Amino acid sequence: MKRVSVINQSIDTPSSGSTHLPDTQSLDDHRRLPIRKVGVRSLDVPIILHLGSEFQQNSIARFGLYVSLNADVKGTHMSRFVEVIENMNGQWDLQNLKPALELLLKKLPSQCAYIDLECPIFLTKSAPVSGKSGPMKYMVRVDSHLSQGQFRQTHTLKVWVTTLCPCSKAISNFSAHNQRGEVTLTFHSSQSVDIPNLISRIESASSSQLYSLLKRVDEKAVTELAYQNPVFVEDLVRNIADNLKNLPELTWFQVEAENFESIHLHNAYAMFSSLDLDP
Amino acid sequence: MKRVSVINQSIDTPSSGSTHLPDTQSLDDHRRLPIRKVGVRSLDVPIILHLGSEFQQNSIARFGLYVSLNADVKGTHMSRFVEVIENMNGQWDLQNLKPALELLLKKLPSQCAYIDLECPIFLTKSAPVSGKSGPMKYMVRVDSHLSQGQFRQTHTLKVWVTTLCPCSKAISNFSAHNQRGEVTLTFHSSQSVDIPNLISRIESASSSQLYSLLKRVDEKAVTELAYQNPVFVEDLVRNIADNLKNLPELTWFQVEAENFESIHLHNAYAMFSSLDLDP
Amino acid sequence: MKRVSVINQSIDTPSSGSTHLPDTQSLDDHRRLPIRKVGVRSLDVPIILHLGSEFQQNSIARFGLYVSLNADVKGTHMSRFVEVIENMNGQWDLQNLKPALELLLKKLPSQCAYIDLECPIFLTKSAPVSGKSGPMKYMVRVDSHLSQGQFRQTHTLKVWVTTLCPCSKAISNFSAHNQRGEVTLTFHSSQSVDIPNLISRIESASSSQLYSLLKRVDEKAVTELAYQNPVFVEDLVRNIADNLKNLPELTWFQVEAENFESIHLHNAYAMFSSLDLDP
Amino acid sequence: MKRVSVINQSIDTPSSGSTHLPDTQSLDDHRRLPIRKVGVRSLDVPIILHLGSEFQQNSIARFGLYVSLNADVKGTHMSRFVEVIENMNGQWDLQNLKPALELLLKKLPSQCAYIDLECPIFLTKSAPVSGKSGPMKYMVRVDSHLSQGQFRQTHTLKVWVTTLCPCSKAISNFSAHNQRGEVTLTFHSSQSVDIPNLISRIESASSSQLYSLLKRVDEKAVTELAYQNPVFVEDLVRNIADNLKNLPELTWFQVEAENFESIHLHNAYAMFSSLDLDP
Repeated sequence: MKRVSVINQSIDTPSSGSTHLPDTQSLDDHRRLPIRKVGVRSLDVPIILHLGSEFQQNSIARFGLYVSLNADVKGTHMSRFVEVIENMNGQWDLQNLKPALELLLKKLPSQCAYIDLECPIFLTKSAPVSGKSGPMKYMVRVDSHLSQGQFRQTHTLKVWVTTLCPCSKAISNFSAHNQRGEVTLTFHSSQSVDIPNLISRIESASSSQLYSLLKRVDEKAVTELAYQNPVFVEDLVRNIADNLKNLPELTWFQVEAENFESIHLHNAYAMFSSLDLDP
Repeated sequence: MKRVSVINQSIDTPSSGSTHLPDTQSLDDHRRLPIRKVGVRSLDVPIILHLGSEFQQNSIARFGLYVSLNADVKGTHMSRFVEVIENMNGQWDLQNLKPALELLLKKLPSQCAYIDLECPIFLTKSAPVSGKSGPMKYMVRVDSHLSQGQFRQTHTLKVWVTTLCPCSKAISNFSAHNQRGEVTLTFHSSQSVDIPNLISRIESASSSQLYSLLKRVDEKAVTELAYQNPVFVEDLVRNIADNLKNLPELTWFQVEAENFESIHLHNAYAMFSSLDLDP
Repeated sequence: MKRVSVINQSIDTPSSGSTHLPDTQSLDDHRRLPIRKVGVRSLDVPIILHLGSEFQQNSIARFGLYVSLNADVKGTHMSRFVEVIENMNGQWDLQNLKPALELLLKKLPSQCAYIDLECPIFLTKSAPVSGKSGPMKYMVRVDSHLSQGQFRQTHTLKVWVTTLCPCSKAISNFSAHNQRGEVTLTFHSSQSVDIPNLISRIESASSSQLYSLLKRVDEKAVTELAYQNPVFVEDLVRNIADNLKNLPELTWFQVEAENFESIHLHNAYAMFSSLDLDP
Repeated sequence: MKRVSVINQSIDTPSSGSTHLPDTQSLDDHRRLPIRKVGVRSLDVPIILHLGSEFQQNSIARFGLYVSLNADVKGTHMSRFVEVIENMNGQWDLQNLKPALELLLKKLPSQCAYIDLECPIFLTKSAPVSGKSGPMKYMVRVDSHLSQGQFRQTHTLKVWVTTLCPCSKAISNFSAHNQRGEVTLTFHSSQSVDIPNLISRIESASSSQLYSLLKRVDEKAVTELAYQNPVFVEDLVRNIADNLKNLPELTWFQVEAENFESIHLHNAYAMFSSLDLDP
């Protein structure tokens, strides 16, 4: 990356070094109220994204980094959160944020540390008949947390699909309304997860998939496929739950679907939680 | 509206009255560079919206107000823009912002004044078969300008519709992909315009319309109607242009359509300008 | 409100009445997976907003309405959610959504019903010295839930303030960086709550308040006041917690503050939970 | 990039090849209305961003690609826009989109082709005293156009800065309100432009600059610097205009500044156009 050279605004500082500046943050706080989370957010940074050992991609992530603060301390030191990002050298494995959380706790000793980040990933996807390929965007997010040695990560994956309405198909002499839908999968896992495999399990549960590039033979195929696989938002979250419920690595998951209805200005929404599965 | 009473933070001011405070804005400016527009924006205010003499509705508008500034003056007086809004007493006729612009020029003498505002309007709309009704949202916007007696307004109207793809219909054995689309109509007019009529001319040019409330008989009707009226984004802007081109009150217009494609994550877009009409 | 008359697109329906249309939603579902929430969202509607018995204001709300769905039923009936909104006749008391939830359960018998809505409110606020007044925007939101007779509401209030950095003040020979900050208060309450009073308790906890209209005497006052009341995000959430912790009507609350730092492109954030208060 | 393998949803196509599918888009259009722009937008793609010959960076760009359409043709071929992106192999020099426009015209013969793209860039920036460095985000955008051999590009650059109010400083016994501001520079150029140099000319025209990482010695420096360099939005756009007006490579420019006022919930805005410079 290039370095910006500041023009006509270099700042001359007098002799006073940083050691002489008061440290307001470290003062005692009289209110005796602990802060659960304090830090920085909406910090955009270019990263090398890793999703387990095999997947690597350039992306741009939006970060949040926080620690807890004891009741008797006035404030945290905000610059150290950014230093943690610098120290990671742009390498982020979303399947394991523990090293970053440990670094954060080393720089800012606290009961808890939190890091969240969200970024797009792109997978090359081939059209179903012509085989022509193009990049398909998905969003990944992780919310992580380290507290007294206990490490926890919540993963989120956003996938967009086609949904075709079963009611519209059943009652109409021909055709059915269909639309773009957004699926949000949130999960806890006991081990590294195959993200492209999860994406496939979501896409295959919909009426039809989205593609960046479709020729006419492909458009015919996805149109007919969608009509043959009508799903309500309810069906979509249930199909996905069916595709995921036997994956041993998912210790908890939640599936949300939101359809940008083609016949309304509002959206249809459904949510399934694995907590509602029979034991 | 209720008044917020400030608790434990009343501000005691010393004897210095406002007449003694320096007026930095009125200083001479040495750079000799005129400012085309200066003012306030993203100011949200509840209004009584008028669209001509018959249409009246409560709404919440986002305002921008600006004036031009001569090369020899350092700054404008920002509080006066907000005073203009206060002086309008919440009554805004989007078909005629000239009185507000004149008030702005009276408070802030300048070559030019600009006001823009954008807000939702709601029309009660009946489902096509059951007749059940519900509120339908549209967006209206006006950009106005008064310069040396010359008054100009540009109106914008956003309407959402259903579009069904003619190609998908023609190549598929059954069904066709369809989706929600957004139409943006921008226009100049020589007189007051019937906004609900413009909305109807846009909605009737699409594959089918959106409704807030549809029973099954309605859903059957709109599904079948859309299949019988397939439109590309190109067709949609042309159909709308056809519906508008003979309205004498429109002295210029531009139609944009954007489809949130149900088979792609990107959108299809088309734009027609009345400047391209044969004379 | 005016009614849109559809031009050249009236839909003629054949003899088949709605009674003959199949009801796909009511079919048995073989997957045996219950849906926790299903319904509609992002539905914008003009309302008469009530906050308890005294406060009334026109606003525009964004709604979400949902019910739970048993494992053996294929789908819910989406149009009934919109009918509930129609049946409320635009009258919404955010302090008590129980009647709306009961109406929803009557139309769509289920274990649980959920309604959330978010809208701006405006309070007339006077400048601290000149006394000149203008409208100040705040956001209110409620997430409500009725399950087997158990009724629960979570309220959210967004208030914007000025924050001035204590560290910057302490280390600099003059001035201090300051910025706009956003406070989000979320709470449960045992009774109707005085929203303007909560707003005052938040605003008075900041370095200085925001106003829509400030004359020079006011700007001098708020500038000096902010410098005399520096707060970190940590101080801000603690000051607010101090101002709220003895309100008996709040049975739980959480305070978040986010500063749009004037010296960074990222934001500072802190969160306090009343669960961390000493019992 | 990894390839998604579709699970249980491979699409079997019957014998009908693409050659037999009707080409609806190529049909004659009876309305005889030309389309000024038609194509795809909101297409996110990972790219290798070039800004002239020396600057190279990974980024993620949002694309729009369009062509004009003659009055007698029904529609364009949407998949070819995406194929143009594929054919560029991710290499995009924002200083010269002509090759991409030519490729687009080759695939979709038309009077005009348009490409726009927007993406973040990151420059490593050192804190003014400690010298500690971190990534700083800027946004770049280009709108390009090729019509009958005539090639035109409009560049846009977004830079965020600190602004401190001169009025607040002049009237207050101490301190002054300050805030984050957003500068948008739009320009035409006759040759390749040094983007980091433009950024420096914008940042040095503000009260103080933004940094991702500031230690206390730096925070002291930027706080004091901002107080010594108060600017209204008017001053900011004039200072930038002064810093740019003698650059021969800029054949036209416009500067906008928007301050997220720390004492208001609305923003202050100013705009300067080089068309208003004395000849």
